[in-house]
Amino acid sequence: MSLPGSGDGPRVSDTGERALIERIRRRLPPAPSALLVGVGDDAAVAAPDRGALQVLTTDALVEGVHFDRRFSSPADIGYKALAVNISDVASMGGAARFALLSLILPPDTLVAHVDGLLDGLMELASASRVALVGGNITRSPGPLIVDVTVVGSVKPRKILKRDGAKPGDALYVTGQLGAAAAGLEWLRAASRDEPAEAERLARPDDPGLAACVERHCRPEPRARLGALLGRNRAASACMDLSDGLADAVSQIACASGAGAAIDPALLPLHGGARAWFAAAGRDPVGACVAGGDDYELLFTVPRRARGRLRAVIREARGVPVTRIGEVTAGRSIGLLRDGTLEPLPAGFVHF
Amino acid sequence: MSLPGSGDGPRVSDTGERALIERIRRRLPPAPSALLVGVGDDAAVAAPDRGALQVLTTDALVEGVHFDRRFSSPADIGYKALAVNISDVASMGGAARFALLSLILPPDTLVAHVDGLLDGLMELASASRVALVGGNITRSPGPLIVDVTVVGSVKPRKILKRDGAKPGDALYVTGQLGAAAAGLEWLRAASRDEPAEAERLARPDDPGLAACVERHCRPEPRARLGALLGRNRAASACMDLSDGLADAVSQIACASGAGAAIDPALLPLHGGARAWFAAAGRDPVGACVAGGDDYELLFTVPRRARGRLRAVIREARGVPVTRIGEVTAGRSIGLLRDGTLEPLPAGFVHF
Repeated sequence: MSLPGSGDGPRVSDTGERALIERIRRRLPPAPSALLVGVGDDAAVAAPDRGALQVLTTDALVEGVHFDRRFSSPADIGYKALAVNISDVASMGGAARFALLSLILPPDTLVAHVDGLLDGLMELASASRVALVGGNITRSPGPLIVDVTVVGSVKPRKILKRDGAKPGDALYVTGQLGAAAAGLEWLRAASRDEPAEAERLARPDDPGLAACVERHCRPEPRARLGALLGRNRAASACMDLSDGLADAVSQIACASGAGAAIDPALLPLHGGARAWFAAAGRDPVGACVAGGDDYELLFTVPRRARGRLRAVIREARGVPVTRIGEVTAGRSIGLLRDGTLEPLPAGFVHF
Repeated sequence: MSLPGSGDGPRVSDTGERALIERIRRRLPPAPSALLVGVGDDAAVAAPDRGALQVLTTDALVEGVHFDRRFSSPADIGYKALAVNISDVASMGGAARFALLSLILPPDTLVAHVDGLLDGLMELASASRVALVGGNITRSPGPLIVDVTVVGSVKPRKILKRDGAKPGDALYVTGQLGAAAAGLEWLRAASRDEPAEAERLARPDDPGLAACVERHCRPEPRARLGALLGRNRAASACMDLSDGLADAVSQIACASGAGAAIDPALLPLHGGARAWFAAAGRDPVGACVAGGDDYELLFTVPRRARGRLRAVIREARGVPVTRIGEVTAGRSIGLLRDGTLEPLPAGFVHF
């Protein structure tokens, strides 16, 4: 990993926008048959899936806000910029199809770093069968920004919204919680403030911690599970955990005009995250529930759809799915501890 | 107009992302029937036009690169951020349908300025029948950035690409050239370097100059004419003049494997721009041909399609269309002066 402006080789200011676009165009895999006009014209032209609706989402990663070039390699940043958008499409029950990449680059950005960004983005694009169809490159007088738009598709009546949860529905979450937040905390502590303290709390070669750092740098969008939940109509509401579980539970409950009770004993805390927060003297449940960037899915399942959920879990081989609580009548939201509802901690705040 | 950080009232850092999104959501007009899920969920869901292909494009306006808050009001910036994307869709022969708005805002941005941005964007969106369906808001540790993605539609076999021009096709341009570049030059001269010199060259109340400034701040995308050119199959190639006429001629010629000869006497130079560049002692043709940001359309018309072009011009009431030259065999590109081909000046460079 290198710092901004460090390292050798040509910069984007030496290369120019046109040459950069051509450089990207040359490394794209063969276009899918649905793509009629790709990178290099005023806009891309693509055929939508037959009988499907368009799913449209955009999400930007901003240097100094969402990533730190000391912790994330260019490939990590490119990977994550696409991952967070694929996650949004999955949380609607859709399948991502096409991506537009808007790069806003400081002039001293190394061309090798742009290549790295594309390496990471293309790695996930090809694993997810998403085609990079266009975008834009311009100069930044400030931070490096990677702004990605993804267009996906979803069949009518298979859309997963936030507002469909009903009292009595069970709350489920994929994967494990808190890893991305713990990974970022360790990176910050080790690199800046108190490296000795960071090492006392967790050794850099600890596999649990390494998994947390990996989750921060390369979140795994639950693309297949989201699409299956939509297709099988197993979920009544769904969203992704970009800003943490506590935030997602509140969002689904508020949008659905309902409450939610989470059983803290059921929460699938990540082992490495639990160890990190405990060593730091903090409540692992609270920290894992508040921590953002996990990009797991939170969804609600009506009693009558539990059989369909079992089918989804079988098809989405290997993705852990855990029941963590229930949608309730009324508007209270919290962790159910010894019969009392404790308020949820706050999630990630963008300003 | 106010400077960044100046003025009174709440800042986006006081308001927060959620409240800003809610503020935007509340002022949206009723959603078109094609929009099934709009602002406020993980992604938008929209029905594509029946039998149509998707046109996908994204373009960012970056403070200090594409706009200066001393010259452009927040409403101008919002208007232009959408206009440049509608122009890209029009240049493919498509019609813009949906927009995603990615705002990257310094924390001290006034909420009133975000309102202004939306005013300008919504004004053009409603005039162009484009629905704002989603987006993203995040903090910027540097400049204010407005990154817009537009999804449009185009019928199969009606797509206008850059690479379809053939030797013998006539070259046409809409509107007038050079106004945006002249307007920006005057604004820069008057505000910063030499206000007296700026006033000597052009009085601020000169209507020609005012039109130039207006064109810089609020370019008019040729949405209707582009869609008509595609629908009637009148053009063999098309692109917009984001980086100037000289650049667009080169792009179409290169993509089509052809050359181009422009007759400088035919070029529709903007009167205000011609006066400004002449007063500044520069060649008006060269300056108007190199100047970017006009967002007119350059297109090529085969001889057999001239009747169809006349029909398009009649339908696109009031948009000037001027024949400026011809696509040629070979690869030479230039201005034909006294039988010699002079090279075209260079266009806007992004790094």
